Amino acid sequence: MDTFTPSTPKTATPTPTTATPGPGSAAPGYIHGYSEREAVRLGDQADALADLLHSGTRYPAGSRVLEIGCGVGAQTVHLVRRSPGARLVAVDRSAESLAAARARVAECAPGALVEWRQADLFDLPFAEGEFDHVFVCFVLEHLSDPVAGLERLRGVLRPGGSLTVIEGDHGSAFFHPDSALARAAIDCQTRLQRAAGGDALLGRRLLPLLDGAGFEGANVRPCTVWADRTRPELMTGFTRDTFIPVIESVRAEALAAGLAGPADWDRGIEELRRTAVGEGAFHYTFFKAVAHNPAGTTAR
Amino acid sequence: MDTFTPSTPKTATPTPTTATPGPGSAAPGYIHGYSEREAVRLGDQADALADLLHSGTRYPAGSRVLEIGCGVGAQTVHLVRRSPGARLVAVDRSAESLAAARARVAECAPGALVEWRQADLFDLPFAEGEFDHVFVCFVLEHLSDPVAGLERLRGVLRPGGSLTVIEGDHGSAFFHPDSALARAAIDCQTRLQRAAGGDALLGRRLLPLLDGAGFEGANVRPCTVWADRTRPELMTGFTRDTFIPVIESVRAEALAAGLAGPADWDRGIEELRRTAVGEGAFHYTFFKAVAHNPAGTTAR
Repeated sequence: MDTFTPSTPKTATPTPTTATPGPGSAAPGYIHGYSEREAVRLGDQADALADLLHSGTRYPAGSRVLEIGCGVGAQTVHLVRRSPGARLVAVDRSAESLAAARARVAECAPGALVEWRQADLFDLPFAEGEFDHVFVCFVLEHLSDPVAGLERLRGVLRPGGSLTVIEGDHGSAFFHPDSALARAAIDCQTRLQRAAGGDALLGRRLLPLLDGAGFEGANVRPCTVWADRTRPELMTGFTRDTFIPVIESVRAEALAAGLAGPADWDRGIEELRRTAVGEGAFHYTFFKAVAHNPAGTTAR
Repeated sequence: MDTFTPSTPKTATPTPTTATPGPGSAAPGYIHGYSEREAVRLGDQADALADLLHSGTRYPAGSRVLEIGCGVGAQTVHLVRRSPGARLVAVDRSAESLAAARARVAECAPGALVEWRQADLFDLPFAEGEFDHVFVCFVLEHLSDPVAGLERLRGVLRPGGSLTVIEGDHGSAFFHPDSALARAAIDCQTRLQRAAGGDALLGRRLLPLLDGAGFEGANVRPCTVWADRTRPELMTGFTRDTFIPVIESVRAEALAAGLAGPADWDRGIEELRRTAVGEGAFHYTFFKAVAHNPAGTTAR
């Protein structure tokens, strides 16, 4: 599952918010009615995070690109928009997700050329060195052995080809107003992910993971989300509609595992929501790395 | 005390490090010997953090600028270098710090015009609206009432004049390898600072503080330090030589207050040091805000 994919794209339902338009918002002259304004705002939300994550990722026309673990296509639409001439192969192990991704791309980027393949990262139906570039986003965090996963990806990458990887790190989440219960709720998600064999704190260790898998020249950079009232598109699009739902989604599991009591949990979520309104503020760091398959070598 | 001022400027003593030069380091052709190389590296360290914090801060020639709480001049030297024509008044309540700051500026920026004044933020010897700009860095974190401090600063700022404020936030510190004892050591510093009336987690709430003090148009942005082996100047200059010494400096206090046992403390510091070598990595966020004194008003 793609942690940072909002479960369902939000429709243009007006939602109360105290956020005020900041610099860069649509000028008043462009606002022709509430629902159009709302549509623009929702577009801004998606674009603000996509700009942060996809900035600098553009594949040459004709290059063969693998997106592994495309899920419902949340990143695929941005890949095809930014690299319209690349030959993208999008892979996921879930047929249901692939169908959703295909529908999303058909709607958001009609005419985009994407080959869809159902496969598992550890059993890829591709020849050694078949791809010029590999893109992987919010996948390693779910693997019990991310180095082994990266080795498989290096195996289908041509010598000298590039891997781009994006992962979050829940240890980067801090906010105003601060709240011990809100921090505890986030910690529940981290513990449950660890119990399932994953790591919600993986972003910080991308460099050693890439080294361990035999990549070279790895460069990791933080992509920082800072969402306060001067960035309403992130306050609603990221904090309210993306991050908080990720935490909320583990309520039943967290209570069943005895990691939190229901009253504390609900209070924690309530206090987390306060960071997305008014004078609230939220910080989160994604990490993006680019590394290369050494020229003249193949993965084991 | 200025939290992020290294206690003593390091001399050019060669220090062991496994860090390798990253992109942007001096090219091999410029390296004429070990001590010169070391001097370049030390210069890079100082500049890397200064570039991050001072980027975008440049005051017009002739403008009257107040730096409040200049300490030993760690930021003053960068202010005068970047705004050589501004008329800077640097204030600190400690005569000893002022003397050190004066010596530092004389050495690092000879000829810079700085007026030095010994005074307390809450008893400033200036007329209402006397300054065009105010610069304050790592000061609010030590105040029990930062809003009152900001109101005093607004009082000496002309209507429409700008305030620039920089603060850290220890809640932003996370690292690889992760370590519960290292996190506990950082938490000791945060608790001791709170017990002394300050707040090491202040950065995240700059916007409400500025609003509360009557400033307008406040914009806060994160200045992210990400220090891994591809950024050796930050790995040594920030993690090893700046952040870790800040934490280490409270050892006696932390033990005396019963916040940590000596074995756990020392292990925590040891594990913190591992984040500054080899495959280690360290994340920290400073926050920088610019806000204005409303035109046509004066502070209460």
